[in-house]
Amino acid sequence: MAISPIRPTDNAARALALGLQAKARFAAIGVIHPDTGAPVVSRIAFALDDSNIPLTLISTLSFHTKALQNNPACSLLLGEPPAKGDPLAFPRLTINAVAKFLPPDTKPDLRAGFLKTHPKAQLYIDFTDFQFVRFSITSAALNGGFGKAYNLTATDLA
Amino acid sequence: MAISPIRPTDNAARALALGLQAKARFAAIGVIHPDTGAPVVSRIAFALDDSNIPLTLISTLSFHTKALQNNPACSLLLGEPPAKGDPLAFPRLTINAVAKFLPPDTKPDLRAGFLKTHPKAQLYIDFTDFQFVRFSITSAALNGGFGKAYNLTATDLA
Repeated sequence: MAISPIRPTDNAARALALGLQAKARFAAIGVIHPDTGAPVVSRIAFALDDSNIPLTLISTLSFHTKALQNNPACSLLLGEPPAKGDPLAFPRLTINAVAKFLPPDTKPDLRAGFLKTHPKAQLYIDFTDFQFVRFSITSAALNGGFGKAYNLTATDLA
Repeated sequence: MAISPIRPTDNAARALALGLQAKARFAAIGVIHPDTGAPVVSRIAFALDDSNIPLTLISTLSFHTKALQNNPACSLLLGEPPAKGDPLAFPRLTINAVAKFLPPDTKPDLRAGFLKTHPKAQLYIDFTDFQFVRFSITSAALNGGFGKAYNLTATDLA
């Protein structure tokens, strides 16, 4: 009989997940390749909007943008390990989501908040190929280090 | 007319990709969810074997292991940005691959090499739920920073 490594979600797990989400400035995003159906992982910017909803700024020239336009199902990995120690002993958060492309007229509203956490993005934020995409969370998984795994809901991260 | 951001692959791009691969100790892995077909990204250990073939050590208790047993198509993101600067200005490598589970009797051969780069794994490498998985590269994509994208083949990384 297999032993499940998933622990019951408690407030400490929720707080750890929310902390990872608040601190993250970038994420590894997994998308579905439009031709093969295989997963493809790349790096994107990560931010929270004023309502704490995950957000990114991506270019239509990027492969991940084209993939998301074809299939909005995606997954984000947040939380970087320090340089020392076993990278798998440190907490990370998987957010499974559906990407929602925001219309260009929302850019002015989101611009200042995004630049607060991503000041270097001022170099390209106004390029017309860059657009904001919001992530609607479907589920999440927290790995707090070996043997400390939790399944989370969108409500846990709200 | 869309301008392709992909540059012709040259020796400098190959060297940068090989360096990222040699230096990586962990990766973000994208797998396909067995029930939904959506991508799911999590963290795994990353190493190269004696023939420079990418390798990981994963537990059958992990979600990614179950997903790979169901569908071996996967994608790895390597290369961590430093703490300062725009995380998107630093190089990272996407390796698209097929996972091949190695039989338990190969563990003794791979053990010493893996522990050389992942010494902390001695805490769990001998647990029977941990097994080595080799990645057979199908394609790769190098992002050397804004506007410096390259498509690579398995041969480029050999």
